[in-house]
Amino acid sequence: SLGHGRPWIRMEQTTNRVNWRPVNAAKRPGQMRLWSYQAVARGADGVMFFQWRQSRAGAEKWHSAMVPHGPVESNPAWQESKRLGNELKLLDTVCGSRGRAEVAILHDWESWWALELPSKPSTELLQMDQLRAYYQPLFDANVTADFAHPEGDLSGYRLVLVPNLYLVSDKGAANLERFVEAGGTVMVSFFSGIVDPNEHVRLGGYPGAFRKLLGLRVEDFLPLATGAPPVRLLDDPLWSKRLAAVGQSPRRSVGVRLETADEAQGELWSELIEAEGAEVIGTFVGGDLDGRPAVTQHGFGRGVSYYLGTRLDPRSMERLLHRVWTEAGVTAVIEAPPGVEAVRRHTHEGGSLLFLLNHNDGPVTVSLPGGAEELLSGDRVGSEGLRLGPREVAILEEPLT
Amino acid sequence: SLGHGRPWIRMEQTTNRVNWRPVNAAKRPGQMRLWSYQAVARGADGVMFFQWRQSRAGAEKWHSAMVPHGPVESNPAWQESKRLGNELKLLDTVCGSRGRAEVAILHDWESWWALELPSKPSTELLQMDQLRAYYQPLFDANVTADFAHPEGDLSGYRLVLVPNLYLVSDKGAANLERFVEAGGTVMVSFFSGIVDPNEHVRLGGYPGAFRKLLGLRVEDFLPLATGAPPVRLLDDPLWSKRLAAVGQSPRRSVGVRLETADEAQGELWSELIEAEGAEVIGTFVGGDLDGRPAVTQHGFGRGVSYYLGTRLDPRSMERLLHRVWTEAGVTAVIEAPPGVEAVRRHTHEGGSLLFLLNHNDGPVTVSLPGGAEELLSGDRVGSEGLRLGPREVAILEEPLT
Amino acid sequence: SLGHGRPWIRMEQTTNRVNWRPVNAAKRPGQMRLWSYQAVARGADGVMFFQWRQSRAGAEKWHSAMVPHGPVESNPAWQESKRLGNELKLLDTVCGSRGRAEVAILHDWESWWALELPSKPSTELLQMDQLRAYYQPLFDANVTADFAHPEGDLSGYRLVLVPNLYLVSDKGAANLERFVEAGGTVMVSFFSGIVDPNEHVRLGGYPGAFRKLLGLRVEDFLPLATGAPPVRLLDDPLWSKRLAAVGQSPRRSVGVRLETADEAQGELWSELIEAEGAEVIGTFVGGDLDGRPAVTQHGFGRGVSYYLGTRLDPRSMERLLHRVWTEAGVTAVIEAPPGVEAVRRHTHEGGSLLFLLNHNDGPVTVSLPGGAEELLSGDRVGSEGLRLGPREVAILEEPLT
Repeated sequence: SLGHGRPWIRMEQTTNRVNWRPVNAAKRPGQMRLWSYQAVARGADGVMFFQWRQSRAGAEKWHSAMVPHGPVESNPAWQESKRLGNELKLLDTVCGSRGRAEVAILHDWESWWALELPSKPSTELLQMDQLRAYYQPLFDANVTADFAHPEGDLSGYRLVLVPNLYLVSDKGAANLERFVEAGGTVMVSFFSGIVDPNEHVRLGGYPGAFRKLLGLRVEDFLPLATGAPPVRLLDDPLWSKRLAAVGQSPRRSVGVRLETADEAQGELWSELIEAEGAEVIGTFVGGDLDGRPAVTQHGFGRGVSYYLGTRLDPRSMERLLHRVWTEAGVTAVIEAPPGVEAVRRHTHEGGSLLFLLNHNDGPVTVSLPGGAEELLSGDRVGSEGLRLGPREVAILEEPLT
Repeated sequence: SLGHGRPWIRMEQTTNRVNWRPVNAAKRPGQMRLWSYQAVARGADGVMFFQWRQSRAGAEKWHSAMVPHGPVESNPAWQESKRLGNELKLLDTVCGSRGRAEVAILHDWESWWALELPSKPSTELLQMDQLRAYYQPLFDANVTADFAHPEGDLSGYRLVLVPNLYLVSDKGAANLERFVEAGGTVMVSFFSGIVDPNEHVRLGGYPGAFRKLLGLRVEDFLPLATGAPPVRLLDDPLWSKRLAAVGQSPRRSVGVRLETADEAQGELWSELIEAEGAEVIGTFVGGDLDGRPAVTQHGFGRGVSYYLGTRLDPRSMERLLHRVWTEAGVTAVIEAPPGVEAVRRHTHEGGSLLFLLNHNDGPVTVSLPGGAEELLSGDRVGSEGLRLGPREVAILEEPLT
Repeated sequence: SLGHGRPWIRMEQTTNRVNWRPVNAAKRPGQMRLWSYQAVARGADGVMFFQWRQSRAGAEKWHSAMVPHGPVESNPAWQESKRLGNELKLLDTVCGSRGRAEVAILHDWESWWALELPSKPSTELLQMDQLRAYYQPLFDANVTADFAHPEGDLSGYRLVLVPNLYLVSDKGAANLERFVEAGGTVMVSFFSGIVDPNEHVRLGGYPGAFRKLLGLRVEDFLPLATGAPPVRLLDDPLWSKRLAAVGQSPRRSVGVRLETADEAQGELWSELIEAEGAEVIGTFVGGDLDGRPAVTQHGFGRGVSYYLGTRLDPRSMERLLHRVWTEAGVTAVIEAPPGVEAVRRHTHEGGSLLFLLNHNDGPVTVSLPGGAEELLSGDRVGSEGLRLGPREVAILEEPLT
């Protein structure tokens, strides 16, 4: 999605082990092929490998390759590479086709860099953690999502997610407002819209860039401790001991009461929110924020914005996101068994290709309307659905409807 | 006490979060005010703040301030600062008054620096840990203590504590001897009086500077392992693994039998002590030091000296210290419920001001003789005692007796 | 054994604590003497000390010495040094005598350095760990072992062990082959014989230098995770978090089925082995290597070679090694109680000296044929055997048989 949907090439696939981790686990049988098809499913028109021949000397001699140090034909990685190469020849239909997403996740490198500079309310608020907290439920439910720039064209999406956008330009903030005014749905997490592109704080009340859109003001931040080991400052082994003795240990989590009956937990962050028009749909439980807003919803123009003042536990986050994407009219690619990834690419001619990737160690059966042709085998899917072995892949050319 | 009792100013109070910790917890409601009054109780005649206005840019923009980034009047930290400022105007009586302590804890920066240089018997013997082990029981019991320099005037004290004074000058050692000869009580922990101001070992038997005063000689040091994670040397991740393989792991603790029936534990340190006049009031239990002296008592001139050859577990340390300060004639400011800090300042006119600080999250009632005036409210304390809400403060002008 | 059996001198014994560890534990009573005799038993003709007089100043003032900071005659370390010095005078018979071993462990510094350079399949494969896994069972059973260079003269040994010899020269590989051809037994662990002295991979199939000797080929390495904390790369506290998220966590252990009924565990490493003549005597259980070779045995010339494709749990390793050394005709010095080390030195005149070192905290009785003279006491061993106190030592001049 960074290339606006244009096809791309996976530049450095590796057949097996890399050489730069503490322990370089081998890829399991079929895993390299599965992960290569994942790239193709997500828009790649080619898969390139590092490296062709495993070098005899030098720093990368223990990085895997297509041609190994030992005999070639008996080598599993070589066999899997060869099989993949032969298969890719069968997939000309795929080339040039494009994915489509109804959901965009805003992601901006400059905001990431600014967020993780020192001297923030919490060093444990990390861009990638936030992003994963949003992406995982989408991935698990086979809801396709793009990554989009805050200033990019959002008009094609139904739902825009903002895991954390600490830094945003006026143009980006206005872009998001326009998207919601026109009927879109947005969901924003804490410490977003805080600074401008010079990392100057937007004065007058947090979150400066999004107050109007969200219908609220944040009076104060109350970050929570996490289970992560304390970060050593200045690499001084005594420092964390000294810190612990200061006596101001933050709480590790806070209760959250959502509209559903279930108990939720907030982690990493909490804050003192003043609703300025937003409807409170979740409140903090216990502590100094007891009964105060934790999650809000706000009608804006023809659309709606949601706000999260904490990081919800994964199960509660999944439920809330599911409700929000359903209300926004977003649909999954297909309903598939757990561990089966489903992605669709669309051809210029109006056809569609459905990729099914079984990440499980065991076989699964996927329910599908009959009639599609599986491009690797040439078989047609019958009414009994499609059976996929462990780490197996199917690429279905779907009948035009 | 470093300024010999002269009033001082708290230079950098902060209204709320700092910005240099891994997770910068917010101060709880009333905590900034409570801690400001703690400074006043301990001798401050003023409380200054860093920073006035929370900066919009730069490294300290997430350090809290009196004037926040957002609206001012709704901000809890601003409200608490304003309340404090208004209250301090009512406390002219306090200005210029002084605290009084019957206990001094010796503390010397040069000794601290020398102790924590490399290549000692144990890198885990840290000045601040030792100091805290002595200070905590005094604080909990509202026994006021000064910090004094080894060469300073000790004549006003009943009890002088020496948590660790690895380095001491001849003048300092003689000063301590004079104090005990004149009837004072001293309590010294291990690895004190070991080197002179050039960090040259005082030869002839440890602890060179204090052998006569303590009536003993230390033949050998047997440091114990602590629960702390091993310190990495040379930042080499394999080093601690290699160290562990050397096979000479020290013990983690040692039993100590004190005169009371209770079982005590010694941590961090043990040593082979030869009494040379001192009475043994505690012995090691088990291991190579079984039955050997761990804690001693020695009459010297008109006074008495105590010596600890290990670090006692906190409960045993509290009991021993309580016995020693009681025998030395030291008294607490008042008897107060747990978590209530009590400190007294004395005016030049002979009056006294009693500060009561409730560090608890719930309310407490403090028993007091009636009649005192509470300066912040103007109320008089009745016979039913004084009720203090969570993190609340009272400053009582006590009736002249 | 590095000096081909020539006597040597222990250069830097220390009487008590060193000063460079995090916590410098004291030596226990008798421990310095015991460890000094261990050096003598293993071939030392002298024991030198660092340092004579404990310095008053400087970086090593807290390193122990023969002459302490305090009084000399009362000092336990001085007394133990003096006793040792007086005893060594009685041991002229020992001087110039030599040990004998039927087992050699190959050890080569260049291979060690090459193995622990970066970018290997696993950073957790460490030379010393591998060496210890082989040496511990030999030490516990009082089977004397030399350390030998791969190119050295191996003709005097019955069994040669190769814990890990990643790098080996053609000459070294040929040397090992000749040893087995002539009737010797060799046992080799994984990732040996892999590179030449320039750290160039020996192409054509792993383990290039030993394929013929072992009768097998290794197709692929599948390292396992260990319990060790992850090594931080670039000292970046976020790096291990990021690594964990990559999703390719290696397994921590793998089952191994040996010919005995017992369940074994493999740690650290596993690999895909193709037997090329070798007999499979242990297989992997579960995972992608289920049923594949883990341990093999191969007749070569008049000898036999064993190969380990994983690191066995200590108990299974002990059993396997015991079987292999027994079959190779290797015998222990004597059968002794656990914790008693037994080593023999042989004089030029054909006599033998048996060293018995009790590493236990309690006394033991060692069964021995009567008649030997104990050199330190002058006593003769009777039919009831020899009683040794905690950390005590006996040096027996054995009767000529």
